Amino acid sequence: MAEAEAPNRSPEIRKDRIHNRWVLFSPARSRRPSDFKAKSNPQPNNKTECPFCAGHEHECAPEIFRVPANSTADWKIRVIQNLFPAVSRELDFQNPVSALGDVAVSGFGFHDVVIESPVHSVNMSDLSPSQVGEVMLAFKKRVEQLQNYDNVKYVQVFKNHGASAGASMSHSHSQMIALPIVPPTVSARLDSMREYYKQTGKCSLCVQPNELLIDQSAHFISLVPFAATFAFEIWIIPRDHSSHFHELDNEKANDLGGLLKLMLLKMSLQLNNPPFNLLIHTSPFQVDPSYAPSTHWFLQIAPHLSGVGGFEIATGCHINPVFPEDAAKILRDVRIL
Amino acid sequence: MAEAEAPNRSPEIRKDRIHNRWVLFSPARSRRPSDFKAKSNPQPNNKTECPFCAGHEHECAPEIFRVPANSTADWKIRVIQNLFPAVSRELDFQNPVSALGDVAVSGFGFHDVVIESPVHSVNMSDLSPSQVGEVMLAFKKRVEQLQNYDNVKYVQVFKNHGASAGASMSHSHSQMIALPIVPPTVSARLDSMREYYKQTGKCSLCVQPNELLIDQSAHFISLVPFAATFAFEIWIIPRDHSSHFHELDNEKANDLGGLLKLMLLKMSLQLNNPPFNLLIHTSPFQVDPSYAPSTHWFLQIAPHLSGVGGFEIATGCHINPVFPEDAAKILRDVRIL
Ligand SMILES: Nc1ncnc2c1ncn2[C@@H]1O[C@H](COP(=O)(O)OP(=O)(O)O[C@H]2O[C@H](CO)[C@@H](O)[C@H](O)[C@H]2O)[C@@H](O)[C@H]1O
Ligand SMILES: Nc1ncnc2c1ncn2[C@@H]1O[C@H](COP(=O)(O)OP(=O)(O)O[C@H]2O[C@H](CO)[C@@H](O)[C@H](O)[C@H]2O)[C@@H](O)[C@H]1O
Repeated sequence: MAEAEAPNRSPEIRKDRIHNRWVLFSPARSRRPSDFKAKSNPQPNNKTECPFCAGHEHECAPEIFRVPANSTADWKIRVIQNLFPAVSRELDFQNPVSALGDVAVSGFGFHDVVIESPVHSVNMSDLSPSQVGEVMLAFKKRVEQLQNYDNVKYVQVFKNHGASAGASMSHSHSQMIALPIVPPTVSARLDSMREYYKQTGKCSLCVQPNELLIDQSAHFISLVPFAATFAFEIWIIPRDHSSHFHELDNEKANDLGGLLKLMLLKMSLQLNNPPFNLLIHTSPFQVDPSYAPSTHWFLQIAPHLSGVGGFEIATGCHINPVFPEDAAKILRDVRIL
Repeated sequence: MAEAEAPNRSPEIRKDRIHNRWVLFSPARSRRPSDFKAKSNPQPNNKTECPFCAGHEHECAPEIFRVPANSTADWKIRVIQNLFPAVSRELDFQNPVSALGDVAVSGFGFHDVVIESPVHSVNMSDLSPSQVGEVMLAFKKRVEQLQNYDNVKYVQVFKNHGASAGASMSHSHSQMIALPIVPPTVSARLDSMREYYKQTGKCSLCVQPNELLIDQSAHFISLVPFAATFAFEIWIIPRDHSSHFHELDNEKANDLGGLLKLMLLKMSLQLNNPPFNLLIHTSPFQVDPSYAPSTHWFLQIAPHLSGVGGFEIATGCHINPVFPEDAAKILRDVRIL
């Protein structure tokens, strides 16, 4: 891992006002030893083809749509059903199912996969800015379709890259899970941002200190958040105050594609192609109007330089050895050749 | 991983009423393929000695106490400072430190390590029931010492076993972090349990359905929780309604030692010595009296059979392929030779 700038700085506990939780910053932690054999980052098998590759479409669960819409063998993006879904589109939504005397709902929902390239070895950061933009527009199109189901409350778009970020398939893809409930982290985020707005009259994402900025484009800024959960975590935030990811138009998608590609390249170069998650934090389809001035969607890139342990699971507080202003400076200075 | 009993059961979304969050149960998920090379569980180096071993005390950060108190080379347990602490006992508590215009407090706190055996290769489940009980009493003694610091609000006791559960040292140990803030998961748990009490007049842990029980002792029960976050997760709950772990007396510690050892053995046998976290979920030192009827401490054993991915990080909802009542039945049936 890249050395933080000030390894002897005192620890500090910062409030993440977006999620209403605390993060412990402690540079000393990065120097602790390990007596386990080096955690080798599992590499993909040397396969050059998989079910997500062009020519293997029949090995996949049914397709929902492809980009371009009328392409045949020459598709660029495919949105398909997940063959091993966490939730089922075939169930009726029942609320509540009382099992063992406690609260449960049926596992209704949609679980889809977005294949981002027909070629096995192409990563998202290998795509051109406009191709990354097209992936964003494929997400948007599918989110808009899912909005038509009355019982879908929230759609989570996420990407797992690398085995220790959870990926089981190495071919570049993202996933979307449409849920009949609003997840707890999402409600907590909305409540926390509204609370901040009530106290200050400001949206918590609209104004950001210069020390944390990495870069910017016509419509987006990129930064390391003040209370980053993960070392070298990056957020990309639309400059316009906008609640929902699917408000993205073609021009902004293209612009986002450029900045996202640049951030992925900077991260890979600085941190040696780490495993990471890409997360789109948006709002539930229906939100009470009182949330409007304070909700603002954003995109999170979370590199996984070390795992988490029992402390994080028990408390919800993460320990980050790199101060965000140090990470931002390092990422600002990375030059892409 | 052990096969769940009913792999074709429909998915279900259950409410974890203790933490006020949702868990997705989907047996289908356990069948998905992976094209990454098998994630080998990193094994400890073939070292037979480390700084935590008897005879290496001088390689450790300062000792706080040992068990038995006046032992020399023949100690059984040592409680020491963590050499690479996440929080610092030398800082003054300052509240709030406003950095970059946002909320932060100084990183004041205590970060200690409990070495559970003088011998490198002894696991917690190798200790006798009364030795496991003595480890619990060492936790208790240190928690009581930390209670004397005005600015300590909460102490998290946790154990990481195995590299993918976060462990960097393989010699059996636990850790304790004393914090100047109440962590978000702890406040959410207290609030959620109080809400359940208000609605039902019952403590959410005092009554449990038989289908979820694994075993019981004079003073504790063990079970798989209704909305388990992890497959084969186990909770050990005191039968007496008690808010704080450190209310444990000698007799109950000894009894807990037996049941905890048994659960660790059952888990290891059934799941082939998986990495796991052991977590003590207790209450902050100061709690408003309105929480008293609903707060109840418990111990969680969380095996890590698979990692988590972006969905869990983004939403706080976990995906568990094994229904708790199936896991409970399997664990009930494991025979210890
Ligand atoms: N032929 C086929 N057709 C259609 N779909 C196919 C398919 N073959 C495989 N799939 C699906 O493709 C997906 C690939 O997803 P990822 O590699 O991002 O991680 P996965 O969902 O396995 O689990 C990670 O992400 C989830 C959610 O964060 C975590 O629960 C988990 O622990 C982590 O490993 C899988 O969900 C799989 O079901
Ligand atoms: N000579 C010595 N004297 C005293 N102490 C010594 C020492 N040598 C090492 N230590 C300390 O011993 C501890 C061993 O702890 P663990 O193996 O449980 O996991 P660790 O804390 O490294 O990180 C795991 O747990 C934390 C908290 O959950 C996660 O943040 C992290 O990602 C995960 O890997 C370390 O904290 C280390 O600082």
